[in-house]
Amino acid sequence: MRVLTFGELLLRLKTPEYLRILQSDNFEASYGGAESNVAVSLAMLRDEVSFLTKIPDNPVGLAALNEVRRYGVDTSGVVFGGSRLGIYYFEKGSNIRPTTVLYDREHSAFAEACEKDFAWDQILKDVDVFYFSGVTPAVSDSVERAVREALKYCREHSIYVVCDLNYRSKMWSTEKAQKVMGELMNWIDLCIANDEDFESALGIPAFDGDMAHGIDQIDTYREGMKEITRRYPNCKAVASVLRNMRTVEDGDWMGIYYTGGRFYESPVHTVHSLEAVGAGDAFAGALLHGIVRGFAPQKVIDFSIAASVMKLMIQHDFNVVSEAEILKIMKTNDVNLQR
Amino acid sequence: MRVLTFGELLLRLKTPEYLRILQSDNFEASYGGAESNVAVSLAMLRDEVSFLTKIPDNPVGLAALNEVRRYGVDTSGVVFGGSRLGIYYFEKGSNIRPTTVLYDREHSAFAEACEKDFAWDQILKDVDVFYFSGVTPAVSDSVERAVREALKYCREHSIYVVCDLNYRSKMWSTEKAQKVMGELMNWIDLCIANDEDFESALGIPAFDGDMAHGIDQIDTYREGMKEITRRYPNCKAVASVLRNMRTVEDGDWMGIYYTGGRFYESPVHTVHSLEAVGAGDAFAGALLHGIVRGFAPQKVIDFSIAASVMKLMIQHDFNVVSEAEILKIMKTNDVNLQR
Amino acid sequence: MRVLTFGELLLRLKTPEYLRILQSDNFEASYGGAESNVAVSLAMLRDEVSFLTKIPDNPVGLAALNEVRRYGVDTSGVVFGGSRLGIYYFEKGSNIRPTTVLYDREHSAFAEACEKDFAWDQILKDVDVFYFSGVTPAVSDSVERAVREALKYCREHSIYVVCDLNYRSKMWSTEKAQKVMGELMNWIDLCIANDEDFESALGIPAFDGDMAHGIDQIDTYREGMKEITRRYPNCKAVASVLRNMRTVEDGDWMGIYYTGGRFYESPVHTVHSLEAVGAGDAFAGALLHGIVRGFAPQKVIDFSIAASVMKLMIQHDFNVVSEAEILKIMKTNDVNLQR
Amino acid sequence: MRVLTFGELLLRLKTPEYLRILQSDNFEASYGGAESNVAVSLAMLRDEVSFLTKIPDNPVGLAALNEVRRYGVDTSGVVFGGSRLGIYYFEKGSNIRPTTVLYDREHSAFAEACEKDFAWDQILKDVDVFYFSGVTPAVSDSVERAVREALKYCREHSIYVVCDLNYRSKMWSTEKAQKVMGELMNWIDLCIANDEDFESALGIPAFDGDMAHGIDQIDTYREGMKEITRRYPNCKAVASVLRNMRTVEDGDWMGIYYTGGRFYESPVHTVHSLEAVGAGDAFAGALLHGIVRGFAPQKVIDFSIAASVMKLMIQHDFNVVSEAEILKIMKTNDVNLQR
Amino acid sequence: MRVLTFGELLLRLKTPEYLRILQSDNFEASYGGAESNVAVSLAMLRDEVSFLTKIPDNPVGLAALNEVRRYGVDTSGVVFGGSRLGIYYFEKGSNIRPTTVLYDREHSAFAEACEKDFAWDQILKDVDVFYFSGVTPAVSDSVERAVREALKYCREHSIYVVCDLNYRSKMWSTEKAQKVMGELMNWIDLCIANDEDFESALGIPAFDGDMAHGIDQIDTYREGMKEITRRYPNCKAVASVLRNMRTVEDGDWMGIYYTGGRFYESPVHTVHSLEAVGAGDAFAGALLHGIVRGFAPQKVIDFSIAASVMKLMIQHDFNVVSEAEILKIMKTNDVNLQR
Amino acid sequence: MRVLTFGELLLRLKTPEYLRILQSDNFEASYGGAESNVAVSLAMLRDEVSFLTKIPDNPVGLAALNEVRRYGVDTSGVVFGGSRLGIYYFEKGSNIRPTTVLYDREHSAFAEACEKDFAWDQILKDVDVFYFSGVTPAVSDSVERAVREALKYCREHSIYVVCDLNYRSKMWSTEKAQKVMGELMNWIDLCIANDEDFESALGIPAFDGDMAHGIDQIDTYREGMKEITRRYPNCKAVASVLRNMRTVEDGDWMGIYYTGGRFYESPVHTVHSLEAVGAGDAFAGALLHGIVRGFAPQKVIDFSIAASVMKLMIQHDFNVVSEAEILKIMKTNDVNLQR
Repeated sequence: MRVLTFGELLLRLKTPEYLRILQSDNFEASYGGAESNVAVSLAMLRDEVSFLTKIPDNPVGLAALNEVRRYGVDTSGVVFGGSRLGIYYFEKGSNIRPTTVLYDREHSAFAEACEKDFAWDQILKDVDVFYFSGVTPAVSDSVERAVREALKYCREHSIYVVCDLNYRSKMWSTEKAQKVMGELMNWIDLCIANDEDFESALGIPAFDGDMAHGIDQIDTYREGMKEITRRYPNCKAVASVLRNMRTVEDGDWMGIYYTGGRFYESPVHTVHSLEAVGAGDAFAGALLHGIVRGFAPQKVIDFSIAASVMKLMIQHDFNVVSEAEILKIMKTNDVNLQR
Repeated sequence: MRVLTFGELLLRLKTPEYLRILQSDNFEASYGGAESNVAVSLAMLRDEVSFLTKIPDNPVGLAALNEVRRYGVDTSGVVFGGSRLGIYYFEKGSNIRPTTVLYDREHSAFAEACEKDFAWDQILKDVDVFYFSGVTPAVSDSVERAVREALKYCREHSIYVVCDLNYRSKMWSTEKAQKVMGELMNWIDLCIANDEDFESALGIPAFDGDMAHGIDQIDTYREGMKEITRRYPNCKAVASVLRNMRTVEDGDWMGIYYTGGRFYESPVHTVHSLEAVGAGDAFAGALLHGIVRGFAPQKVIDFSIAASVMKLMIQHDFNVVSEAEILKIMKTNDVNLQR
Repeated sequence: MRVLTFGELLLRLKTPEYLRILQSDNFEASYGGAESNVAVSLAMLRDEVSFLTKIPDNPVGLAALNEVRRYGVDTSGVVFGGSRLGIYYFEKGSNIRPTTVLYDREHSAFAEACEKDFAWDQILKDVDVFYFSGVTPAVSDSVERAVREALKYCREHSIYVVCDLNYRSKMWSTEKAQKVMGELMNWIDLCIANDEDFESALGIPAFDGDMAHGIDQIDTYREGMKEITRRYPNCKAVASVLRNMRTVEDGDWMGIYYTGGRFYESPVHTVHSLEAVGAGDAFAGALLHGIVRGFAPQKVIDFSIAASVMKLMIQHDFNVVSEAEILKIMKTNDVNLQR
Repeated sequence: MRVLTFGELLLRLKTPEYLRILQSDNFEASYGGAESNVAVSLAMLRDEVSFLTKIPDNPVGLAALNEVRRYGVDTSGVVFGGSRLGIYYFEKGSNIRPTTVLYDREHSAFAEACEKDFAWDQILKDVDVFYFSGVTPAVSDSVERAVREALKYCREHSIYVVCDLNYRSKMWSTEKAQKVMGELMNWIDLCIANDEDFESALGIPAFDGDMAHGIDQIDTYREGMKEITRRYPNCKAVASVLRNMRTVEDGDWMGIYYTGGRFYESPVHTVHSLEAVGAGDAFAGALLHGIVRGFAPQKVIDFSIAASVMKLMIQHDFNVVSEAEILKIMKTNDVNLQR
Repeated sequence: MRVLTFGELLLRLKTPEYLRILQSDNFEASYGGAESNVAVSLAMLRDEVSFLTKIPDNPVGLAALNEVRRYGVDTSGVVFGGSRLGIYYFEKGSNIRPTTVLYDREHSAFAEACEKDFAWDQILKDVDVFYFSGVTPAVSDSVERAVREALKYCREHSIYVVCDLNYRSKMWSTEKAQKVMGELMNWIDLCIANDEDFESALGIPAFDGDMAHGIDQIDTYREGMKEITRRYPNCKAVASVLRNMRTVEDGDWMGIYYTGGRFYESPVHTVHSLEAVGAGDAFAGALLHGIVRGFAPQKVIDFSIAASVMKLMIQHDFNVVSEAEILKIMKTNDVNLQR
Repeated sequence: MRVLTFGELLLRLKTPEYLRILQSDNFEASYGGAESNVAVSLAMLRDEVSFLTKIPDNPVGLAALNEVRRYGVDTSGVVFGGSRLGIYYFEKGSNIRPTTVLYDREHSAFAEACEKDFAWDQILKDVDVFYFSGVTPAVSDSVERAVREALKYCREHSIYVVCDLNYRSKMWSTEKAQKVMGELMNWIDLCIANDEDFESALGIPAFDGDMAHGIDQIDTYREGMKEITRRYPNCKAVASVLRNMRTVEDGDWMGIYYTGGRFYESPVHTVHSLEAVGAGDAFAGALLHGIVRGFAPQKVIDFSIAASVMKLMIQHDFNVVSEAEILKIMKTNDVNLQR
């Protein structure tokens, strides 16, 4: 089975260690974005995966492309054009100091892509699973239209559609998000909703916004997940990560997977993270892997949350871990699991 | 209102990561010192602040000056002369391994400054608040005399004087400290006394030296604070940071502010620090900010301790954080506050 | 005398050593731009200088501002607003490999500044010399209008206007440049024209584009300089840098200064450069210094070219050298001067 | 008293921070190996110590040698020859992500050393204590034979022999280890056995392999230690480190020393480690120091475990700490000791 | 047209800057080898190219593979197995200090590969050009046999065979090289012979070993090239790089291409190199590009030598430059060309 | 034969690359000083050599000591005491930008050493050659007295004394230098005099101060060398390095050795240096090696100048090269030798 992910690829400029931008004369350069992160996860898990985006035909765009290709993702469909690659600046927080992200992604090649940049019948010809996150339609109206066309094609050709709602308040309002995502949900087969996504992207209450007590609200989460499948009958499955975060790094993590009318819940992992970026994408990538490989639902969610917490100990956006390493965490991690 | 801080500026040579000096072929160079740290805190909080020191007119001295100026501190009054900038070597500890500091500050331009280097009537003309720490008079006898003249001028011109006692056993004996600080206290309006400062700098018992149980001794702290105002009637207010430290990084932090005959106590923050240097100066800077801006006493102490614990997650000597960031910590830190 | 420079401040992202963007996972971050470079030159030479720009009120904007302030430039007039700081990526070439610069400066806070962002009567109140380069009006139409208003004010208040034509083909066409600069020349008192500037910015032939033989064309240069003063009678003086470049690093450099109807020519310096960025700005800064300090014309040009070649051995955009160091080069550089 | 340690010296290639080998374009190079680590511990504690190995006479071999010599170890007996220095690649884990070590040590100069490379009568002439770990005979059959000859010499000349069993499953099978170590134990006076060493190297049950519950199994440990002295009457003393590890970094550490028919047990240290490599060698080095200096058994074990946990906060293989620093940990570490 | 290159991929460990291995605690890690370098050149020039090797299935092997894949080379045929990746240590020289290379490549996965690891009928099915260098058969006897089988297949299927003789005295004797290469030459269509290759690999005199006077011996070179085609009638074309090297970095470079009974000679480039590794492979890669794209012979040699000297200014093994950049060097490099 | 060198060991703080101290937030830390540099040269050449100095018993002092010991110098006689290690800051120049050195060495442990710190009869017991440079007596009066006592002991015990005059204007005046060195010369057997040393240290004219024309003044040099042996009859041999320096890096280097009434002159090496620090010490070290090993005078000078120019391509203070490498330069360097 072949997966295609579609979204924006960004240059990430991170200060070394915990330096503030005001203090640093150096940036660590890496590349990422929700959908490329998912693609690399799948490539690391040795699945067949392609990544689709639009990048400028300049060294920065090519460096971004190369970084994705390096891990074995097929990038042969990537579209060239536009003038700049979007950027995000990243300051890593610690303990009570929040991590801060500063976007400089407007006017990027991807944001200025238009529908006709993507020849979906070519692109999706041999694809079995199509993945995007809520970030993609939030990028710009023209990209939103491209998503819509892709989903239409998928519906017509029975391509399985997976979407991580991934609401970003810095990119669009809840009003706009709800309007767009509400419509797109009708074409989505499996949806991932975390934390505020329920409310902000779909207007469904599930989580009150207190990151210290996510897991404690498991009942309203479960209700929200059911509500999604009720409201959007095409969406037959929902997966979520729940967290009780005590500090920027310390917290409990668990996953729930609602499918076939049943809830499958992972054990709770208590972890201290090294770099939290991309943990959600690692979850999505592992979930897709489980589905592509036909894991049983309980194994799907156990594997996905293990992959996600493993990402917390990996630097940069990509979850550079093998299947064997994730399986090992699932087995030997009894030490810090709370069951 | 305009603040002037007066003290020594040092070159800090820190080994990378946790390397020992014996292992490292590199030093991270930054600049700091109690009073420059306070000045940068105030500049970051967008207060008007000047810093006064004496530095050699060579690249190392100028680099130090530039680093303070960079953050918006007025350095136009800095005096040039002497032959060397003082240095401190710094090895960051972790857990049970103590942080070590090695001074190489003797014979510095500042230590060899004499009274007449500082034209106080010029320097203090438009100043509303004068700040120094106990490190300044400890530097040398001639600097001590300069402090004395400054305080005399402040008294005569109703400039508010704030002093962090800041006792340093590597710089002077308790006998000498008590003799000098005992006299200077008569010109000080607000004093900050932490940990051993009560006993070592003033001979007032308050803290038994057990850093694991500072907060547990809150009663004797309160008594010591009252005693300061009794013994030195000019000193109408005292502020302290109390800590229960479990390891080099882990501990509980709280602040007390005694003013107008009342105690104002902050919540207790439980934190894991990244680099503890300058947390006391961050406290002092935030305290001055609160006073300059007319915060209510409870807000003064809550803000000051929040600024101080925020510094624990910032590298180098300066507390490079904005007022908005500190206020946010005050509001959202319920997760790891023990009330 | 007080100088004000006006232009865009950019984040420069340079790969380490000679790495290509395609190879590097790190960028050295520094800040610069023609007019900020000139301002820092003047501050290093201990002249009074202010820098005016518009930057976003975010950490990247503030870091840029701090970097200029660090060297002693007055930045109190800087305007905050807009959403991004312009960027340029930089790969250092060597020998036959050209240095490459990739602009990502569209939509910057400065480019989107409008005339009313700059209250010229306030800003220029105590200013004696106004400096900008041809890059500034090339940034955007609104900035061009702001320049025009500034020049009008200068004319009315006898502020001396200096402009480095600084033509950049990546920013505007020769047609547009000639149209705009042709008009602005009527308000300029002293103009710097290098290499292709004569032709591209003013349509005056002087240099045939062969960088290996700039000095060899000294006669057409001289003719071009005269032609400038003939065509724009307000412009009484012209300065130029002439070069015979043999490789990216190796070449001969000389300066000519045409003023009072006479040519003053510097000796030829044969140099191997370390980093050629900002050499023109260093020339302009030193020229302004010479004028502000009243150097004789011959000393003006000798000092300016010495400052410029000294910059070739200094990393980053700013010419971090003192007057004493430049004077020493003028005196002791007989070894590699060809007279 | 003079100690000689004998074993392989390796180049360690560690990725920076927590990067994976797949992500990194840099390796931090250091040198180490069980027996060289012990030697450097002793040199740091100002004991007389020599290190014996065989290295290739090329820059990598010399760099390794120099690194040991740098800390004051006598390396005058080191043998030159062979063609390569063994290597181990090292990725530091964190929390639930395991640390990974990849050996590339086959065909090294040491592995290919033969008996006649080591002239034991010369080498051991003035030696009082001979130390090796189980890694040494595991390296190759020829090295095992060299160890055997050394032990024979020691027995004949009353040189005290200390061995850390140090079982490495990547180097030999339990069968082979038990066969070899079972014989060598007859010449060993003091043996260190940790964790799986009892079972894997000697076939004596003591620890069930659950690193989260090592200390909890103290009774079977004690039984195993007694059994060693019963089975190998020449071995009069056994020392062990017991651990309850909660994550890669967090755990409780204690030491037991069985000598003269009595158990001496250290307090339990609860620590968060920075880099766990070499903690066992630090324990061995400190134990040897205690023996050489004639510490009482209780002080021997208290000192050894303090040195070992101190190493957890020191980067690279060598325990670069002084005796004074270890003694200080023993005294002031009440904060995080569980008694 | 599709090219396949076949050879060993190595980890390169280079000290930073010009440090000696004895001085450095860091290695820059990159990956390369003659045939992978050629493959990356072709991918950068946007040709279709695959690379074949054998690597261990461990992180070091995968990192090497990823680095080649990153630039767009097809690596889908790479064989996994064996236990180690070969290494070479690299100290960059300067001026009179020679660059030094220390091999640690014995017992590598590739060296221990056997004939049956490579299914040539599968691998070469869609290949038009097969490339290897003399390093490949020098690696081991079993690899030599694999080369032989590949060449047999190529002959039978009219695949064009290109070989850079690339003699390495550290890998085999001239006797062995001449014996092996003498036979292989019968299957080679185009051969590259530089410097000592004529004599050492084929026993044909052409160059006397004086690197300062390579170009000066152009006549004997031409004679040697003719002699190759006489002695090995299947080899219809020969290309060579000739150099007059004055120091480690400074020299003149030119190329000659003998084909169709005629000599085509490039202009002479006078350059100062940044890092000379891989210049020969860059020459070979560009030559293949010219052939694949059907360049006229004069353009082939001009382009190849331009690509080769461009590599002298690029760090690491791969010639990360585009066709446009090489063409630009060919056109604008008149400055430092001696015609 | 055993050599002892005596002098100060300093911490060198160098900015990375060519950064100015004003620009850098990092210092590369290394250790050196004329006499330690000579000692390391000898150790690298596998001679028996000890180094004597006084350092503070703190981590900075120990790190300095370790760095010397690392290369195989015997440091067992080093005296501990005092409070600080001297420092020099170092900015590397290039082309016309001079290298700058800023001393911060006053009040160092060595400068404050007194005569009785050094028990010469113990220290010099088995020594055959005693080496110091003019820097040592310049450090302080007490150290000068220590030198005097050492020389007296050497005279009485027929220890051969070698001194590099090494005049440093930042340390003492020519008056003082001439007074002190004039006396010490009576105990010196071989003296090295370079450039201004003749005039500044001894008052003997030889070189007019024009570094661009040192070799051109070879006749006055020869005259100065003879004059030294005339004026100080105990001094039977003189060696000098002569240079024509065109830029900071480019120049011609040659050596002259006057002994037994004859001049031995090396070929002229034309070089481009990487880092010129320590080239004189490398010359001295190689000269001592030649004497210790009994090289013929012509080989002594050829070897010494080759070692010296080799050092120009080695970073840091120590000449980390082997005898074989120097001999190779002597043989193969015909390319850039002007004979």
